[in-house]
This record gives sequence, structure tokens and C-alpha cells, in this order.
Amino acid sequence: MRERLVVIGGDAAGMSAASQARRLKGPEELEIVAFERGHFSSYSACGIPYWVGGDVAARDELIARSPREHRARDIDLRMRTEVTELDVPGQRVRTRDLESGAESWTGFDKLVIGTGAQPVRPPLPGIDAPGVHGVQTLDDGQALLDSLTALETDGATGVPPAGARPGARGRAVVVGAGYIGVEMAEALLNRGYEVTVLNRGPQPMATLDPDMGRLVHEAMDGLGITTVGDAEVTAIRTGSDGRVRAVATADAEYPADVVVLGIGVRPETTLARAAGLPLGGHGGLLTDLAMRVRGHGNIWAGGDCVEVLDLVSGRERYIPLGTHANKHGQVIGSNVGGGYATFPGVVGTAVSKVCALEIARTGLREKDAREVGLRYVSVTIESTSRAGYYPGAAPMTVKMLAERRTGRLLGVQIVGREGAAKRVDIAAVALTAGMTVEAMTALDLGYAPPFSPVWDPVLIAARKAVAAVRAAE
Amino acid sequence: MRERLVVIGGDAAGMSAASQARRLKGPEELEIVAFERGHFSSYSACGIPYWVGGDVAARDELIARSPREHRARDIDLRMRTEVTELDVPGQRVRTRDLESGAESWTGFDKLVIGTGAQPVRPPLPGIDAPGVHGVQTLDDGQALLDSLTALETDGATGVPPAGARPGARGRAVVVGAGYIGVEMAEALLNRGYEVTVLNRGPQPMATLDPDMGRLVHEAMDGLGITTVGDAEVTAIRTGSDGRVRAVATADAEYPADVVVLGIGVRPETTLARAAGLPLGGHGGLLTDLAMRVRGHGNIWAGGDCVEVLDLVSGRERYIPLGTHANKHGQVIGSNVGGGYATFPGVVGTAVSKVCALEIARTGLREKDAREVGLRYVSVTIESTSRAGYYPGAAPMTVKMLAERRTGRLLGVQIVGREGAAKRVDIAAVALTAGMTVEAMTALDLGYAPPFSPVWDPVLIAARKAVAAVRAAE
Repeated sequence: MRERLVVIGGDAAGMSAASQARRLKGPEELEIVAFERGHFSSYSACGIPYWVGGDVAARDELIARSPREHRARDIDLRMRTEVTELDVPGQRVRTRDLESGAESWTGFDKLVIGTGAQPVRPPLPGIDAPGVHGVQTLDDGQALLDSLTALETDGATGVPPAGARPGARGRAVVVGAGYIGVEMAEALLNRGYEVTVLNRGPQPMATLDPDMGRLVHEAMDGLGITTVGDAEVTAIRTGSDGRVRAVATADAEYPADVVVLGIGVRPETTLARAAGLPLGGHGGLLTDLAMRVRGHGNIWAGGDCVEVLDLVSGRERYIPLGTHANKHGQVIGSNVGGGYATFPGVVGTAVSKVCALEIARTGLREKDAREVGLRYVSVTIESTSRAGYYPGAAPMTVKMLAERRTGRLLGVQIVGREGAAKRVDIAAVALTAGMTVEAMTALDLGYAPPFSPVWDPVLIAARKAVAAVRAAE
Repeated sequence: MRERLVVIGGDAAGMSAASQARRLKGPEELEIVAFERGHFSSYSACGIPYWVGGDVAARDELIARSPREHRARDIDLRMRTEVTELDVPGQRVRTRDLESGAESWTGFDKLVIGTGAQPVRPPLPGIDAPGVHGVQTLDDGQALLDSLTALETDGATGVPPAGARPGARGRAVVVGAGYIGVEMAEALLNRGYEVTVLNRGPQPMATLDPDMGRLVHEAMDGLGITTVGDAEVTAIRTGSDGRVRAVATADAEYPADVVVLGIGVRPETTLARAAGLPLGGHGGLLTDLAMRVRGHGNIWAGGDCVEVLDLVSGRERYIPLGTHANKHGQVIGSNVGGGYATFPGVVGTAVSKVCALEIARTGLREKDAREVGLRYVSVTIESTSRAGYYPGAAPMTVKMLAERRTGRLLGVQIVGREGAAKRVDIAAVALTAGMTVEAMTALDLGYAPPFSPVWDPVLIAARKAVAAVRAAE
């Protein structure tokens, strides 16, 4: 008998699952119906800053697979259709066509929840004013770009014409200095805006320890991006036309022609919560290793709406990231399609850049380690991306945490220039394998003068960590 | 009672050992005497191609620590002093001062052998002619540079003046297309020579499988480097002035103003062999995990004169590489100094480049796997260094070998452009940890559009390898 798979959400997790399930089972065995409330399917949200900043010319370049392409593979993807209710015992979802308003129920044998994340949008005065933008979806990105284009072409705003000196196109305030915040700061700088980043914490990139965040702060200063720490936004000020004019904190007001919110996201689990599905401490769905929603044999979930197991701390964490969503989708699709695959967990790897500055982290920060009761040593070293004598050798700071006594690697943070960020992969694999820093000192990493000093910076950090573990005994 | 450590060889392994031993034991406890027959200490031989090619301006940039700096740390480093005999039972070495010819004996309590490698120099007619150069030591590099400078300034050779179009400075023939060969080809191309590389095998880079070597061949063609495969050199032809004029193979003659030998090296173990120390099948010294020469409690050896354990195949291999020599030295110095450290082995990682082309390998090639009785599957994928839509995304080919049945990773080879080579480190750590390709598909590697597609190329290869392992069952 032909089964029906329903997928909620037409982006990475949902559509990867649908595609992989389709690879394993043909339409005669498995009907696949997917619902997406937005205008776009299977796109790279991570690419939005580069599209806004002009590195990527056209929106469609960010779309990995269009609705038409999905339909050509016998996946009945219905766009602009929102799932408004999930009836678990009845095995059906209620949907609303966002164009016509028509509602209907669709039954399922198997269900995949890939509802993604919703941006954190604090209930501040003026938060909904024209000119205030989130950048979570491609629709958001389009709205921001439309807003910027209007600013840049509309003499009425008093903004100088395009092509003028940096900063001349207007003033942008970015709220939040996490990945999205710093990437949007770069994008707006590249686009010619004067950029101020308001950050609630003392340093940007709270996913790093503050000492490493300080390096990012200094580098952003050097790029001409004003970064204000300990800045709690209290209101968005608007002009007589209702448009944003400034961002207010307890201490100051920052004039703004455009405001980008990069405060972060939380799991979009409204439907799941209403349906009584199990949620974790971060509000995300809880799954088993096969990405099945715990306690539910025929419901899977993946992507930005689930919590993931952190293999280093043993805790559930919320890490909305496209690469995880794709892996989840792949695993879910294999299982739904009658195969077998698992997602064992993450180690918390993330990389980013602000202009030429590269930022990377994996594993635990100092405060993460303390929170789970781990005692650790911490070392920080300076080295270079290439042999010191080779042209283009750029400085790099590597911080490494190791457990006391056992010497087990706990985390690595890197701030540097070209060649810095992806070095974190060495530590990501070592964390996955449970390596000690002593074992890491013997790692046979690629060496040639254009690529690394004779001791790779990660190995130098490991050597120093070994000494620190011994000294702490 | 004060002990005396004697070190034979003043480069990476020997002097790293001496320095580390000195860190652990002061001169009142340990006297350190080191002998080096050349003019330079602790230098980066790997940097020679970049010095010859002009990327590195001055020879001294390649010297990590000069004899004076070593002496300032109470290491009695005697330059231009050759050890001519090793008397193991008598615990002494005989040395000759290469300037004065004076000979003497020096006793030791502990001995470190870091005699390095000697270039393979086949007994061809004309091999010793002026204009034929090895590039193994800094002395060799200086001789080559002197020869090139003479060519470029001496009108008598008929060579056009410096600054003329590429190829106009003269014709260079490089014999051998391994790491040194291809790096010297780049160096001579950058210096303005017309470059021909003669290779005994069918494809350059025999450390790769031939299908990956072919990609290197094509890229070198594209750079204007002529690479001739299956070319066995039979003679070096000289002119009436005795200088090199051409390189002859069985089939052809290649005109040459300068010839660089990059045929490879073998362990320099003349002393060790005469002293009856244990040598392996590749002619290198055999050590235990603490880098102690097998069966000898007070003699250690490291660097290009030893064989190393390949952790993937379980066999001893000969891999002369600066990064191993430095690690060996560190381990030896710790043990000599009363500490404890081991060198567990290698996985055979190597990276190189020819202009913008990056080349990397780790683990076993197909023929290595067959030689040790492993059955394997092999997959090759094409991907990009960054998200496909991000500027500068460059193509990359990744080949992956996995063991049949178990799915254990056996090896990875990568040929690509910027961002390709150091990705091999992911596989190097995974090999060290004994990971399966299935476990690799879940690796939490750094992802952001400027650094990687959402599935890193190594993960794409791992996914394909998983499928191949299953299909082969």
C-alpha cells in the first residue's frame, strides 16, 4: 500500500529528507507532500549576508533547488501554504493557503517536521517600524535589500548617491554581534554604509570566550566598524514618516537609516508544542539518534527546530546551522525511506569572517566547561598561517581547553586571517574522536611552507596544553 | 655527575632534540655537543624552492636558529665538523674539522643521530657537470642560486637579460616530478625559465594514484610547464666548456641551461651502518616509540635518517619531512632530558603546490592498500572550496579509499585550488583515530559560505564512500 509522507517546511532539513526518501522509494511506494509557508525552497540562509553585501549577485544563486525542481522529482511541494495545526493521534495536518486563505486537512503515515527557527524580536517600541529588518529567511533578505535599494535611490531620505565614499550611503545599526551580526556588519560596510554594532555582552561573538572576542572587537575597530559593548537596546526611534531614525540604548542614541536585527533565533516549535511533542530546555524538539521525535514512531524532526546532543558536554544544545540541517535531512530521509542512518551529535563547530578576519570555534568555552562540572586548563598561543618566511603568512591566535588530569581536548577557538578558520576542523575531528592533547601533538598534519609553519598552530597549542595539564597535576 | 650528550647533525631533528633536552636539563647536569658538517644549522630545507623562486628574499630567513643562537643556550654546536666514525661500544665519535682537517674523538653518555638524508644521484654520464644541482641542503640551494645568478648576468651564456618574457631567462630541466620536482618547477617558472620536468613514471606526483597525478599533469600543462612522463634519463650532455647543455633520455634530448635533480632522497645512514646499528628495508634507522635506536639504551635517532611506522598499513615507511623531524627531535629531547614522550607514527600526510594548484594526500594509495592485503573501495568526487555561489569558489577533486566490509578510512587525495590542500588534515585526524567513512559523514566541520559548501567536500566523498562500501558487500 502506498504511504504518504508529509513534510512541514520546505528548506534544508525538510527537503533534504524528502529528496533522500525519494531516492530510496519511488512514487508508487511513497507519496511525498511538503508544505512551505514562504516563497522559496531549499535555500542557503547563510548566504544572505553575502547577497546583501554584493558578493553574490542574484537571489536565485542562493537557491539550491527550486519548487519546480522538487516537483520534477515527484515531491508535491506546496508553496505559500502554512501548516496551522498538527493532529498527532489523527495523523493529519491542517493547512492554510496563504494566497487564497483556503484551509484543508492532509493525512500522513509519516511526518517530518522541519519548521526551522524564528528570529528573536524583542517587544521594543518601534521594532516593527519600516527600516528594521531581520535576516532569517530569504523573504527577510529580500525585504532588507528592497529597503536598502529604496534608501540608496530615494533622494528624499537625504542619503548620498551610490558610489560615494564608504559610509556615505547611510548609517546602519546592527543589533547583536553574533555570527549574523558580524556578517551583516561586513555586508553593510561593503555596501558603503557607516556601521555600528550594538552588543549586549562586553565583546562581540559571545560564542567565543571574552578574551578571544576582544580580538574580534579590535579587528572590527580596525575595519572601521564601531562596536559598542554592554549596549542593551531600549527602543527604536522613528521619524515623523514612521521610518526608523535611531536606536536607543540606556546610555545613548545611535542614528540609523536602517537597522538589522541579528539577535539570534529560537526554535520554531509552535505547532509541535501545541501538539504535545517533547521539547527540551532550549525550546527545540527532542529526537533520538535516528532523528525520530522521542516517543513517536512515525514523526521525525530536524534542522533549526530541534536540539542536538553536544558530544563534548553530553548536554542537549541548540545550534541552528545549515550544515546540521542538511545532515539531519539526510539521516531522516534514509530512515523514512527504509534505510538506516543516525546523527550522533555535534561538537559545536562554527566558522565566520568579518572582511579578512576569520573566526572559528569548536567544543566548549570556559563557561561551558564550568557549567558541566569539567575542570580544565586553558592555553593561548600566537602563530602564523604559513611558514613565517613565506609571503602572506598571517598571524593567528589559537586558544585550547583541555580537561585536567585526563588531558582530553575540550575546545578550540581561533581568530586570525586567511587560513585560520578551517584549521578548527582538526580540533573538530579530534573532539569527535575523544583525543587527548598529548595525542594531538603527534598528529600528522599537512606541512609545506605555503600552508603551515613546521609545527601547525593547532599542534603548538596542543604542546602548550600538554604542559599546562602536567603543571596542573 | 655531569653527562655528555653528543648530537650528530645540526638540523631539525638533532637541534630540536638538543634544545628540548637543554630546556629540561641545565649545563651543570648535561653537556651538549653537536656536530654539523655543513655551513648552516636548523634551517628549513622545505623553503629552498621558495627562496630560489624569489618568494623568500634572503637565505637567512630560512634559518630558524643560527649556530650562535644555539651556543647562547649552552649547546656547543661545532659547524663544518663531520663525524667520520661512530664507536658504539666505546661510546665515542671521531670527527674531522672540514676546514683544518684535524681529527679527534669525543666521548658520549648519550647520542642523538640526526644525519638526515642524501639525495639520490644516479651515476649518469655528466651528472657532476657544472649546472647540475641537487636541492637537499641550504648549501645546495646556495650553489643553485649562484649558478642561476651567473647564468642570468653572464652574457657569454647567451641567456637574455633578467626581466625578459617568461622562459626568456633560459631553459631549465627538472629531473623527477615528486614534491621537490614540482616545487622547483614552480620556482624556476617564477624566475623566468622555460621549464621541462622529466618524470620516470607516467604521471607526476607518484605519491598520488595515477588518476589524481593526471590532474596535476594537466594543471602543470596549463601553467606552461612541460611534463614528460615515462622519461628515463640516460645522460647529462655537456658542452665544450664542460657545462651542462642538455638532458638525454632514451627517446629525446632536452636542451638545458640548468638541471635540477629532484629524484628523491634516501636515509644518510653510512655511519650507522658501519657501526652495526639496525636498519630497515628502506635503509633508515629503526627506532622504538621513544625514538631510541632499537636495542641501544643510550642512542636515539630521528628525522630523515629513520624509518617511521605507518599507522594505517602497520608497515615501516621512509618519509623524509621537516615536520616529522621536528616532532622526533622534540620527543628525543624530552626523553634524553629525563622526561617522557613518544612518537606513535605517521599516516603519510603531505601537501604541496605548483603555483595555484594545491596537492594533498594522506593514508594509503590504491597500490599501498593492495600491497598490505587490504581490500578497498575507491570513490572520487568533484566539489568546490567554498559555497558554489560565493566568489572564489574553486573546483576540488577528492579521492577517498575505505576498507571493504569495515568501512574504515584508508586514505584521501585532494587536487584543487585555494583551500584544497589543508582539508586533508580532516582525513589525517580521522585516520589517526581509526574512523570509518560512515562516522566521518557526521563530522561537525566548520561551515560558512566563504569557507565551504554546506557539505564539505571531504564529507561528500565520505558519503559516496559509505555507499560504495555498502554496494561492495
